[in-house]
Amino acid sequence: MIRDPHPWASSLETLHAQAWTCLVRGVHDRHAPARHPVLATVTTSGRPRARTVVLRHADRLAGSLDIHTDIHSAKVTELRATPQAALQVWDSAGHLQLRLEAEVSILTGSDVEGIWARVPQRSRVSYGSQPPPGEPISDALDYVKSPDLACFAVLRLRVDAMDLVHLGPHHRRARFERQDQWRGQWLAP
Amino acid sequence: MIRDPHPWASSLETLHAQAWTCLVRGVHDRHAPARHPVLATVTTSGRPRARTVVLRHADRLAGSLDIHTDIHSAKVTELRATPQAALQVWDSAGHLQLRLEAEVSILTGSDVEGIWARVPQRSRVSYGSQPPPGEPISDALDYVKSPDLACFAVLRLRVDAMDLVHLGPHHRRARFERQDQWRGQWLAP
Repeated sequence: MIRDPHPWASSLETLHAQAWTCLVRGVHDRHAPARHPVLATVTTSGRPRARTVVLRHADRLAGSLDIHTDIHSAKVTELRATPQAALQVWDSAGHLQLRLEAEVSILTGSDVEGIWARVPQRSRVSYGSQPPPGEPISDALDYVKSPDLACFAVLRLRVDAMDLVHLGPHHRRARFERQDQWRGQWLAP
Repeated sequence: MIRDPHPWASSLETLHAQAWTCLVRGVHDRHAPARHPVLATVTTSGRPRARTVVLRHADRLAGSLDIHTDIHSAKVTELRATPQAALQVWDSAGHLQLRLEAEVSILTGSDVEGIWARVPQRSRVSYGSQPPPGEPISDALDYVKSPDLACFAVLRLRVDAMDLVHLGPHHRRARFERQDQWRGQWLAP
C-alpha cells in the first residue's frame, strides 16, 4: 500500500493549514518556496505587473503578511492607486500552488521604526538608492546605495482569499475567504 | 582571478539575448525555470491575479510566447476584458529575473487545430472538464476530465517590454522595448 505523501490535501481544514505552514516556513527558511513569492499589482493605467519579493512576516491569526520595499519602487506607486495585490507561491515539494488575494496597507516613517531597527545592516542597502529604483541611468552601475529609513516601506497584506491547488494523482482545488471565516469551498480544478 | 559566472549581464545586448535563451530553454526543458512562469492578469473589477502556467512556445524573432489554457478558465475571461499580461520568471542559476509585459491574443477553434493535433493525448485532459475550472463542487473530486478541442485556447503573448534584473555582486537592471527595437536602457536597480 502506498502512503499518501500529502494527506493534508484531502480535507479543507488541513489544506488551509498547510498553506499557512508553507507561508510561515518562508519567513524563517530562506530556502523555502514561500521565501520568494511573486507579487502582482495593477498599474495606474490598469495593466498587470509581477515581481519576486521576499516574505518577511506571516501572521496566521491576523491573516496578514509583510513585505519590505523601497518607497520609491513602482509597486508602491501602483499600490497607492490600487491597494490590491495577488501573491503567488509554488511549493514544488508539496505540489501545492498558493494564490492569495490581499488588500495592502503601506506603512512608513514612525510606523516602521521598530521593524527598521531589526533589519540587518547588510540588508538596509535595499532601501535607499540614488537615483531611485527604475530611473534610467547611462551605465549599469551608475547608482549608489545609501540606506535610509525614509525610503523604507512595509507592505502589509491583509489576506482576503486563498485559492489553493494541489496537483496530486487527482488534482484538488479550494477557495478560502476571510468573510467566510476561512471555511473553504472545493472548486473544479 | 575569479571568472565572472555571468559575463552576459554586463552588456545590454547579451543580457537581452540571455533572457531569450532562458525562455527558449523553458519550452524544451521541463526542469528549466522558464518552463513554469507566473502569469499576471487583471480582473474585470481591476484587481490583480497571478498563477503558474506552462510555457509552450517561444519565438524570439517575433517576440512572442504561447501558453495553453482551458477556455473556461478565469484568465480567459480576464484577458478578454483586459488583453494585457505580465509574465515573470526567476532563473536562480543565472540570478536573473525576467519581467515581461505583453499584449495577449486568445486563439481558439480552427485557429488552434494544428496546435491541438500536436498536444499529447495525456496532456489533453487539461482542456475540458465538467464542471468548468473554478466552479464550486461539493466534494474535492466531483469533476470529470473530457478533452475537447472546443475548450482549448492558446494565449499568444506579444511581448512589448522586458524588465531584466541580474542579482550579481553588483545588481544590474535594464528595460527593453519593442518600440525601441529592443535596444535597451539601464535602470537603477
